[in-house]
Amino acid sequence: MDQKNRTTVGVIGAGSWGTALANIFADQGCPTTIWGRDVGVVDSIQLRHENPRYLTGVELSSKLKASTDLKKTIEQSDILICAIPTQQIRAVFSPFARELSTKTIVNSSKGIEMRTHLRVSEIFGALCPTARYVVLSGPSFAVEVARRLPTAVTVAAFGSEAARVIQNLMSNQYFRVYTSTDVVGVELAGSLKNVIAIATGLVNGLKLGYNAQAAIINRGIAEIMRMGRRFGAEPLTFLGLAGTGDLILTCTGPLSRNRNLGIRLGEGKALDDIQRELGGVAEGVFTAQSAFELASRHGVEMPITEQVFNILYKGSTAQQALSKLMARDLKEEWPSARATPS
Amino acid sequence: MDQKNRTTVGVIGAGSWGTALANIFADQGCPTTIWGRDVGVVDSIQLRHENPRYLTGVELSSKLKASTDLKKTIEQSDILICAIPTQQIRAVFSPFARELSTKTIVNSSKGIEMRTHLRVSEIFGALCPTARYVVLSGPSFAVEVARRLPTAVTVAAFGSEAARVIQNLMSNQYFRVYTSTDVVGVELAGSLKNVIAIATGLVNGLKLGYNAQAAIINRGIAEIMRMGRRFGAEPLTFLGLAGTGDLILTCTGPLSRNRNLGIRLGEGKALDDIQRELGGVAEGVFTAQSAFELASRHGVEMPITEQVFNILYKGSTAQQALSKLMARDLKEEWPSARATPS
Repeated sequence: MDQKNRTTVGVIGAGSWGTALANIFADQGCPTTIWGRDVGVVDSIQLRHENPRYLTGVELSSKLKASTDLKKTIEQSDILICAIPTQQIRAVFSPFARELSTKTIVNSSKGIEMRTHLRVSEIFGALCPTARYVVLSGPSFAVEVARRLPTAVTVAAFGSEAARVIQNLMSNQYFRVYTSTDVVGVELAGSLKNVIAIATGLVNGLKLGYNAQAAIINRGIAEIMRMGRRFGAEPLTFLGLAGTGDLILTCTGPLSRNRNLGIRLGEGKALDDIQRELGGVAEGVFTAQSAFELASRHGVEMPITEQVFNILYKGSTAQQALSKLMARDLKEEWPSARATPS
Repeated sequence: MDQKNRTTVGVIGAGSWGTALANIFADQGCPTTIWGRDVGVVDSIQLRHENPRYLTGVELSSKLKASTDLKKTIEQSDILICAIPTQQIRAVFSPFARELSTKTIVNSSKGIEMRTHLRVSEIFGALCPTARYVVLSGPSFAVEVARRLPTAVTVAAFGSEAARVIQNLMSNQYFRVYTSTDVVGVELAGSLKNVIAIATGLVNGLKLGYNAQAAIINRGIAEIMRMGRRFGAEPLTFLGLAGTGDLILTCTGPLSRNRNLGIRLGEGKALDDIQRELGGVAEGVFTAQSAFELASRHGVEMPITEQVFNILYKGSTAQQALSKLMARDLKEEWPSARATPS
């Protein structure tokens, strides 16, 4: 029996992304169980190898098991994949803090905890400092991964060993995994890009063209990097799969929730009406506030994030916000690049 | 009279991009003349303020002048914009090497000269070492610039002064200019991205999905950076407007010539047939060869460029090329990032 047949995996969260990740591990030969709250979804994955709610029509591995028993799923797994909304992580995992101490946690959720402004590694660090933590991120529509189309992602861990273990377990013909030691950068990139995705939508909604969209993505990455630098992240991470890679996907693929919200804001609709239409809040709406507060507190210049915040929370119009961006002082593209390259 | 009314500008090349750039200078109040070979195009710009061949229906500045007299256009201009195909630059400018010595040249052409493997700054450096050289690049569809939609670009010069002069002359409400001192990086990014655009098209042609497209763009930038590092370029340049910015545009906007060629290759069509269909050769076909030769000679690992070269020149199929990319050894995302940050 090789390593894959001996490593048990529990995926916490049976949404589209959790299901796609669980399917990779099952394809690889790891005994894998996916946990979800919804009995219908869990039964369907277990019995019919399909997630009818989030990945209709995609045939999952027949070896993938599903369960509604959170305690048992956590206890029996060597590796736990976190695939639930960021704001729920603390509540779901808190009761199992002791069990986590011997596990490897692979987090695939993006965002910053409200009020505490903690990244997911910091939430798990607070719950259980001895658990091995890995973050997985990159341009990856779940449905394409589940359909076994080629995808590349980054996994980052503070020590390179845990990341390499995950890399070796998950990499196959359709899923290519790169390793990194920049946990902070990968987490910030994944979270803050949702705000830039809203800004990209604004540009679409205002019908300002492709040049403006490309410029917003680029200058968005530049300001995410400024925040990253403040927290010790590696600049190149933002150029990688978890940074521009993910943003490119947002702007080329089917409408993301965040970009969709931006488009409607750009068209002049009110936030409340948009959220009613979309049936909920896009993650970037939370992150815009957290990021704006963090940037203000730490003196990081984030003009695009600031304008998105102004539109969402201060009643600015999209047109006013854009005028402010275009009227800023003329700049060097990377002012401190040569002085302080990292 | 301010600086703008005193600085005369000559734009060499009356294609869509030359016309859009000329229009900016005219909008800014600079006495501006655009040179072209085609009498019909020149007359139309001069008399009807329209370029009927490349920017149909866009109303140009009524102050923009046009001429078929190359010598006079060069002689009377303080600033010369180069907007002709890269492979023609040497032939067009050679007779005027002496006149160039007092000029500022703003190059907007992308590519590497065939056989010599010279970048455009090196071509002009060989023709006239004392001319001030500036390169302008970034995500910019000409038609959007001519329609005065928001656009951001980078201008790079070896000394920051010439770049700042151009920044101040060109920046306005719809055109935002960032400066850089990384001429080599901006030139390499602009040229090599055409090869990655072909690879992106291949992925589309093979119907491999958005994840794969985003991955190819990202890993494409990573290998362009490796080449850039070999020639002393600044890594962040490739993250900027001239790098990822331009690639994002290629993959989100209307079909670029290079991507279009890649799509048809991905669909299994023969190169000769595609070039007949497209009515000419896409710049990336030249660059794929130059870049592959340069990379081989200097020991730079460029797996995507190599596979594009193999398809274009060695009879590989798109499917074979992709399999090779997915089967490569597992890697760190940025192997030497922490060791040598710049």
